[in-house]
This record gives sequence, structure tokens and C-alpha cells, in this order.
Amino acid sequence: MSSPLYRGLSDMSKVRVHISTSLDGYVAGPNESMEEPLGVGGEALHDWTVVLKAWRELQGMEGGEENVSDALVREETANVGAEIMGRGKFGPPTRGPWGDDPWRGWWGDDPPFHKPVFVLTHHDREPLILSDTTFTFVTDGIHAALERAWEAAGDRDVFIGGGAETINQYLAAGLVDELELHVVPMLLGGGRRLFDGVGPDLKLELLRTVAAPGVTHLKYRVRGLAHR
Amino acid sequence: MSSPLYRGLSDMSKVRVHISTSLDGYVAGPNESMEEPLGVGGEALHDWTVVLKAWRELQGMEGGEENVSDALVREETANVGAEIMGRGKFGPPTRGPWGDDPWRGWWGDDPPFHKPVFVLTHHDREPLILSDTTFTFVTDGIHAALERAWEAAGDRDVFIGGGAETINQYLAAGLVDELELHVVPMLLGGGRRLFDGVGPDLKLELLRTVAAPGVTHLKYRVRGLAHR
Repeated sequence: MSSPLYRGLSDMSKVRVHISTSLDGYVAGPNESMEEPLGVGGEALHDWTVVLKAWRELQGMEGGEENVSDALVREETANVGAEIMGRGKFGPPTRGPWGDDPWRGWWGDDPPFHKPVFVLTHHDREPLILSDTTFTFVTDGIHAALERAWEAAGDRDVFIGGGAETINQYLAAGLVDELELHVVPMLLGGGRRLFDGVGPDLKLELLRTVAAPGVTHLKYRVRGLAHR
Repeated sequence: MSSPLYRGLSDMSKVRVHISTSLDGYVAGPNESMEEPLGVGGEALHDWTVVLKAWRELQGMEGGEENVSDALVREETANVGAEIMGRGKFGPPTRGPWGDDPWRGWWGDDPPFHKPVFVLTHHDREPLILSDTTFTFVTDGIHAALERAWEAAGDRDVFIGGGAETINQYLAAGLVDELELHVVPMLLGGGRRLFDGVGPDLKLELLRTVAAPGVTHLKYRVRGLAHR
């Protein structure tokens, strides 16, 4: 267990990260905007995902491919009881604090999460319920968010959903148990980097390599920080 | 053929790169020195290599492991007729131009290359012959070095041996045909990055994924620059 201080009763649940990355290490491209929230070229990181039956089901859509990536995505999402995300993944910047015109995020009236989501933010706000997803806004940091997510997840796992800064904070704090990278054979040349500020104290062990159409899945156990 | 201008008679030979990289994209760690030419932590990128029988043979040593990585390294080196390397891979910085005390590089009297090596440098110098390796010093740039390496390699392949800056220059110029990354499950947190300055115009196609002890081998065909 890499994070005994924060485990308590839920020793069997894991903190998990899985994210698509370019071969040059970016999980979003440069120059993010309202039109291109994943930056220039960043959306192509997910080309392998959006064709899958498993992904389409989460969006309430029919059809889709059932290849090895489909099985892997199902496995990844099966045991997740709660998600933590950064403010930028929830929605684009607004002019000020929540208030007269509370922003409902990127995700529309039926978000694809279908579970409790905890959003790291600096602005306090009442929870936002959209269909079967509840967004809870947490202003007191990554440890507090993880405690609340664990409580919500019960025996199930907690997924750190991004973006890069949020994942990097949890990695740097030694709070992640499993990391799966979906390595896409493309370069972005700029943008948001996974592992920025994480450094060599984090120890990894390869669990699994899966080659699939348009992507290679590399799964690691994160063995906690070397100095622990 | 990604580089028709420079092919001429040797259409069947390839320009190849294979290099060990940390999961955070560094091929050497921070703070390189005479004692740690690969930077702090960088030598561990090659832990999977130095135990192999194929690697030990190149150093004139007996024994070693014959696992899947061993077969892969043999395949990588089998058809290489010449190598191009940067000045830093040949040897550490010296006080001035070649002259009274010509530096013989990092590699001792019996270098492990066993083939013609072309060293990119700013200082002209006579070729240096050490056992069955000839180092030729090229001062007129990467294209000139590649033409000379092709000439020396005949029908065999040319290997771009590093460091990062040299590889990145050849990638950015669209002169590489195949790229194999040996992804080591460790973070370096700083150092020399593969792909710096290369960018999204370079198109890649996954050829092969091989999981092996302590490393994952990802091989790509480089499809040339998108704007060509």
C-alpha cells in the first residue's frame, strides 16, 4: 500500500490513473481554447478511444468497435467508484467565482461519468447534479479530495481523471497505485506534459503491455516514493 | 522512402534509431559530468542492456542473458554498416581544438562499435582508428555526415547513435526511417529529451511492441514529414 496514511478502512481499493499520451509525453497539445480544449492536435490522442463500443456506451451511443482496447477500457472503468478531476477538465475558465450564472462544465446535461466526481477548485460551490453524475467542488486540496473520493467509492477504486497538473500532483505526492499510459504514435511538440515535476523518486514496475490498433497500452504499478 | 534526395543508389538501406528512454522521455539524466556522462540516474536506462549476451559480445566479454531483449538487440545491430554520433557521445568536451593531445574519446582502445563511425563536430580532425572502429570527424553538418555514412555502409543500414540532440536533428529533418524506443519504467525528472524540437509534422506508425524484463520495446516506422 503506497499511501497508508490515507487508506484506513478501504485498503483494498486503489488510486488509478489511465490517460492517453503522445510519444513525446504530452496529454494535451499547445494553445488550448474553447474550440480546442485539448490544444492543437490534442483531440487526436483519443481517436483510438472514441471508436470503441465501451466508450460509446458511456456517452449513451450505440455501436462501436469491440477490439482489445475495448476490453481494456471496460476493465479500467469497471471497478471505479469515484473520480477526481481538475477545474480545467470540469469546464473552461469563467470570469469569476460561481454565482449568478453557475457554469455547468463541458459535459452537457448527461455527463459520461455516471459516478461521484470531485473537482479541485479554488472557488467554493454547491454540488452540481447532472443526471447520474454529481460534481462536488473541493477547495482544500488533493488530500482532502482523495479522502472524500474514497468515502464515496467505498470498496471500489478512485480514478484520477486529469488534466496533467492534477495527475502530476497525485503522482508527486505518492498517492497513485496504478498508472496506465495509452501511448499514441504521434508527436504534439508542445502542450501539457505528464510527469512534469514528478521526478525520479517515484518508482514504477511494468505490469502489462498491450498492443492495439493505433495505441500501445503500458500499465505500471506505482511503488510509492523511494524515500518512504 | 522518406528522404529521396539523399538515397541515390542505396534505396534498400535504412536510417535507424534505437535508444533507451525513461518513461518521462529523457535519454540522459540531469547534471552530466565526467563521472556521470549520462547524467544523474541516466546509466540505469541501460541496466536492461548490459546484462545481455549480445551486448557483452560487443565489449569482448563472455556470458550474459539470452532473453527476448537479447534477440532484439542482435536484430538491431545485425544489418548496421555505419554509425553517426554527436561529439558528446564520442567523448567529453576538451579545452580546445584537436592538436597536441588528441582526445581518444570515452571508448578505450577497443571501442564496441566495430564499424565506421562518423562524429559530428565543429573541429576538423584526422580520422582516429582504434582497433576495428574508425572515427571520422565531420564538420559540415548532418546531411554531409549521412552521405558519408551511407557510402561507408553500402547496402547496410545507418544507425544514428545519439545523443538526443543528434537524433532530434535527424528526426526533425525527416531523415530517419525507423525508430525503436526502449522504454524503461523509471523517471529521470530532467536531462536530455528525445523529440525536443521535432514536433507534430513527423508521422509515426507502430510496427511492433515487445515486453521484456525491465523494458518495453516500441518500434515505429517514421513516415517522413507531413508537409512533404
